[in-house]
Amino acid sequence: MQLFESTLDNRAAALSAHRALLDRAIQAIHERTFYAAYDENPKAYAEDGMKTGAAAYEALLGKPFSLKQASDTLLQAEEVSPYTGQPLGITYPAYQQPEGYLKAAQAAFTSWKATSPQTRALLLMESLARFKDGFFLQSFATQHTTGQGWMMAFQASGPHAADRALEAIALGYVEQSRFPEYQQWEKPMGKVSVHLKKHFRIVPKGIALTIGCSTFPVWNTLPGLYASLVTGNVVIVKPHPGAILPIALVVRDIQEVLAQYGFDPNIVQLAPDTAEHPITKTLAEDARVKIIDFTGSSQFGDYVEQLPGKITFTEKAGVNSILLDSTQDLKETMNNIAFSLCLYSGQMCTCPQNIFIPEGGIRVAGEQLPYDEVVKALVAAVAGLAGHEKAGPAVLGAIQNPATARRVRQASQLGKVLLESRTIANPEFPDARTASPLILEVPASKLDVLKQEYFGPIVFVVPTKHTEESIRLAAEIAAEKGAISCGVWCTDGPTLHHISDVMSEAATPVSANLAGPIYVNQNAGFSDFHVTGGNPSGNASLTDPAFIVRRYHLVGMRILSN
Amino acid sequence: MQLFESTLDNRAAALSAHRALLDRAIQAIHERTFYAAYDENPKAYAEDGMKTGAAAYEALLGKPFSLKQASDTLLQAEEVSPYTGQPLGITYPAYQQPEGYLKAAQAAFTSWKATSPQTRALLLMESLARFKDGFFLQSFATQHTTGQGWMMAFQASGPHAADRALEAIALGYVEQSRFPEYQQWEKPMGKVSVHLKKHFRIVPKGIALTIGCSTFPVWNTLPGLYASLVTGNVVIVKPHPGAILPIALVVRDIQEVLAQYGFDPNIVQLAPDTAEHPITKTLAEDARVKIIDFTGSSQFGDYVEQLPGKITFTEKAGVNSILLDSTQDLKETMNNIAFSLCLYSGQMCTCPQNIFIPEGGIRVAGEQLPYDEVVKALVAAVAGLAGHEKAGPAVLGAIQNPATARRVRQASQLGKVLLESRTIANPEFPDARTASPLILEVPASKLDVLKQEYFGPIVFVVPTKHTEESIRLAAEIAAEKGAISCGVWCTDGPTLHHISDVMSEAATPVSANLAGPIYVNQNAGFSDFHVTGGNPSGNASLTDPAFIVRRYHLVGMRILSN
Repeated sequence: MQLFESTLDNRAAALSAHRALLDRAIQAIHERTFYAAYDENPKAYAEDGMKTGAAAYEALLGKPFSLKQASDTLLQAEEVSPYTGQPLGITYPAYQQPEGYLKAAQAAFTSWKATSPQTRALLLMESLARFKDGFFLQSFATQHTTGQGWMMAFQASGPHAADRALEAIALGYVEQSRFPEYQQWEKPMGKVSVHLKKHFRIVPKGIALTIGCSTFPVWNTLPGLYASLVTGNVVIVKPHPGAILPIALVVRDIQEVLAQYGFDPNIVQLAPDTAEHPITKTLAEDARVKIIDFTGSSQFGDYVEQLPGKITFTEKAGVNSILLDSTQDLKETMNNIAFSLCLYSGQMCTCPQNIFIPEGGIRVAGEQLPYDEVVKALVAAVAGLAGHEKAGPAVLGAIQNPATARRVRQASQLGKVLLESRTIANPEFPDARTASPLILEVPASKLDVLKQEYFGPIVFVVPTKHTEESIRLAAEIAAEKGAISCGVWCTDGPTLHHISDVMSEAATPVSANLAGPIYVNQNAGFSDFHVTGGNPSGNASLTDPAFIVRRYHLVGMRILSN
Repeated sequence: MQLFESTLDNRAAALSAHRALLDRAIQAIHERTFYAAYDENPKAYAEDGMKTGAAAYEALLGKPFSLKQASDTLLQAEEVSPYTGQPLGITYPAYQQPEGYLKAAQAAFTSWKATSPQTRALLLMESLARFKDGFFLQSFATQHTTGQGWMMAFQASGPHAADRALEAIALGYVEQSRFPEYQQWEKPMGKVSVHLKKHFRIVPKGIALTIGCSTFPVWNTLPGLYASLVTGNVVIVKPHPGAILPIALVVRDIQEVLAQYGFDPNIVQLAPDTAEHPITKTLAEDARVKIIDFTGSSQFGDYVEQLPGKITFTEKAGVNSILLDSTQDLKETMNNIAFSLCLYSGQMCTCPQNIFIPEGGIRVAGEQLPYDEVVKALVAAVAGLAGHEKAGPAVLGAIQNPATARRVRQASQLGKVLLESRTIANPEFPDARTASPLILEVPASKLDVLKQEYFGPIVFVVPTKHTEESIRLAAEIAAEKGAISCGVWCTDGPTLHHISDVMSEAATPVSANLAGPIYVNQNAGFSDFHVTGGNPSGNASLTDPAFIVRRYHLVGMRILSN
C-alpha cells in the first residue's frame, strides 16, 4: 500500500520523520499482535522523571494554567486531590458563555478541514512526541485528580493513552487514504467513451465535542479527540470538573504544535466548567456540534445518544461478570482475580462486579473443591492484597469521588458480608480517601441487585446451580445492562467455547484462564477492541473502523473530460 | 491481500467459482475507475429476452406468487400498472401478524450468524447469478409497478442494481476480512512473556428491516439488503405496497439459493402489506429489529432515524439544483439538462428541481447570451424531447403515483409558467398515466417554494443576481433541506473549484459540464458514492465503509496460552 502519494503540506514537511512510526502503527492495527509505540515502563524514560515530574506538577498548583486558545475569563476549577484532600487551586482560561468556544471552533474549522489527512496525521503525531516528554508530569496530574495509584496513573494516562491516540491517528489516516483522491473514469459506450475526472473529497462533519470522565480523563478522551482531529474536525474538550488538569496538559501540547506549524490553536479547545455551572448540555445540544464522544454515566450517555442530528460515540456503565468453572491452579486464579478487584479500587469500567460460582464448587486440577473453600480462597486473596503494606496502597490508590466512598458504606446491607471494606493506610498520604473491596454474597435470585452497577470496590459473590446458570445470568445481565469485560476460568474446551458463543451474543469480550501479570481489566492498544458497541455499556468501540468513518463523508465531484 | 484463508463451508464449496469475481469487485471498489460486472445493454443477454421476459411476467399476473418462506396467509396486493391502469392481481405469502416474520427471522439468525463471511458472500453471489437470469422478467415487473420506461426498468432494476448488490457484498467481505480471525499475542514483560490466543469474532446485530419505495423498489433496496445479509444479519424486506413484485423476485432468488445449499430460506423474508393495513411501524419499533434501511419520504425517514436503539440507513428527499454559469456548447448543455429533467418524469431522487441562471445571462463559447435566450433554449430542449414521438414516451415513462400527477396539476400556480405539463401519447399503452415537465419561473426570493421538494416533473427556473448568488442559494437549500446531486455548467476553472468547495460543505456531489450520454441523475456502481449522508437527504451513503461496518461488532475473545 502506497501511503504517501499526495504532496505534503509545506508546513508539515518537517514532520515527515513520523512517517515510519505511522506505517508501523498501521501494520500493527491490521496484525493485532503485541505492539506498543510507547514503553509502559517508567524506567524507559528520564531517570530523574519522578523528581522533575513532581516538581513540574507542584509548580502548576494554585496558579493560572496557560493555553494558546482564545478566552475571555479565568475559571476557578474544583479539582481536589483524593490523596491530600487539598484543592489543586488551578484556574483555566475559559469563555463566560459556551458561544465563545463554538465561534472560535467554527473559525478554526475552515483551514483545518482543508488540510490534508496526511498533514493532520503528522502534526498530531508531533503532539504525541511532546506528550511523551510530559509523561511524568502527567502521572502526578492524573494521580491527584483521579486517585489512581502512581504507576497506574503513569501507564494509563501516559504510554497506554498515547498508544490509543496513535491507533486512532493511524486508523484515521488509513481510512481516509483508502480510496483514490483523484480518478479518471472512462465508460465505453459502443463507439464512444465517456470520460470523467473524479475528485473524491473527505468532508469532515464540523465541530466535535469530547466529554471526559473523572476516573480516566486522558485514556478515555484521547481516542475520540484524536479520531475527530485526524479526520478534519475541530474539537471542544469538556473535561469532568474534577479532572481538568490531565487533559489540559494534552490540549496544551496539541495547541503548541498547531501554533508552531502555523495552524489555528483553537482547532482544539479546552472548555472547563464547574458542577455548579455546567455547560455540557448547552454545547451538546447546539446544532453546530455534529459529533459527541462521551465517557461517563449511563444516564448522561443515554441522553447524549438520543440527541437528534448528532453522531455519538459513548462509553457508559456496564455490569461485568466473572465465571468460575474450573482451574488448574487455585492460588494463581484467586491472586489474578484479587488484583482485578483491587486495582484502582474497582473504579475501572472493566472491573468485575458479579462473581458466579456453582454452589457445588469448582474443579481444581481435576479435584472438586467445595463452594465454601472457593469463596474462602477468594476472600483471602483479596484481603491479602488489600492488606499488604506496600502493594495495597499502590494497587488500590484512592477513591476519586466522595459519593463512591459513601456507596461502599451503604452497600453492605445488600447481601451477606464476606469481607468488610476498610480504609487502607497510605504512609505517603495519610489523608487519602481509601476503601478496600467490600465482598458480599448475593443470591442469584436478587436480580435487582446483580443487574445494577455499583461503581467502586463492591463485589458480589453469587452461588449458582451450575456453570450453565452462571453463563445464563452473566449473558442476560450483559445484554440488558451492558458489560465491557467477562473473566472466565474453565479448563473444559467445549464449555469455554460455549461461553464464548453465548457472551458474544451480548457482544461481551471474554478473557479466559488468566494468570500472572495479565488481567481481565486490561485492554491492549493495537490489538484489543475496547467496548464493542453491541450492548448497553456503549455504542462505540476503541478503535474499530466505525469509530473513524462516521466522522466524515465521502463526496464525489465529477467533471467531463472528453 | 490474501482473501481466502479460512476453510470454505462445505455447503458453499461448490460456489468457489465466484471468487474471481469477488476479487475483481473488491479491486474495483478501491480503484473507482469504470467497472460493471453486469452489462447494461439488454443485447448482451438472451436474444429472445424481451419475448420470454414479457411472457414470464404475464404468467405471474392474477396468481399467488410462490416463495420458500413460511407464512400463514396470502396477501392480496394493491399493485396497479401505471401503464395500463389495471391491477396486477398477485397475492403473496404473508403472516397475519408481523410477529410471524420476527419469530422466523430469529430462528434463522442462529445458523446464519455462525456461517463464515466468505460462505455468506459466495452464496449471495450465487443469488445474483440467478437474479441475472431473470433480468428481462424483472424489467417488466419494474416497468408495470414503477412506471419506469422499459429500458430504464431493465437497467436500473437489472444490471445496475446487481452491480450495487455486488458492491455491498464485496465491501462487506473486505471489511469482515480486514483483521485476523485468530491471532497469537505475546507481550514481553522483562524476564517473562505473556502469551494470549485471541479470537476476533464478527458479531452481527440480528434482525434487519429493509423498507422499500415505489419508484426504485430494487435499485434502492439491494444495497442495504445485501449489506445486512453478508454481515450475518437476517432481513425482513417490507416493500412499498405499490411495488412488491420486483423485490419479491429478488427475495425468491435468494431464498432458492439458500434452500439449495441447506440454509434456512427465512434468512430473508418478504413482508408485504397494504396501505390500509400497514405493518412498517410495528416492525420498525420492535426491539428485536436492530437495523433499518429506508428509502422514501423525509417525514417517514425522520421517524425512522429517531427510533431509539436502532442503526439506521436512510435515503430521504432532497432538493437538487443546477447552476448555469457558462458553457462551450449551448445545445449540448440544454439537451443534457432536458434529458435529466425528462428521465422517468422527474421521479428520480437525483433529478434537478431548481435551475439557477444569472439574470444577466451566461457566457456561451465566450459570448454573453441573455437570460431570456438561455431560458428559451432550455424550454425548447425539454419540449422537443418530451414531444418526440419515439423518445418522449420511452424516456419519460409513466407517473407511478396518482398523487404525483395531481401535484403537477396544482403546481402551475407556484410561478410564471414557462412550459405547461401535458400528457404524452404512448402508442403501446394508451391508458398510461403521463405528465411532461412543468417549467415555472420562480423568483429567488420565494425560498418557501425553492426549499420544498416537489416530487415529479416540476422544474423551477430561478433568475439570480449572479453566479455567486446561485451558489449561495443552492448550498443553503442543500444544507437545510438536503440534496443528492448538483449539476453545474461552468467553463471557468476557479469558479468551478469554488462551487465544488461550497457544495462540499453541504456534502453534495457536483457534476460539471456534462454532455453526451452521461447525466447528473446517474451514479455508477463501484465508483460514485450515492447520497453522502452529510445533509438532510439521508444519513447513509451507498456504498461507503460506514454503510457496512455499523451492521456488526468486533468482539475479541482471549485465552491464556502460556
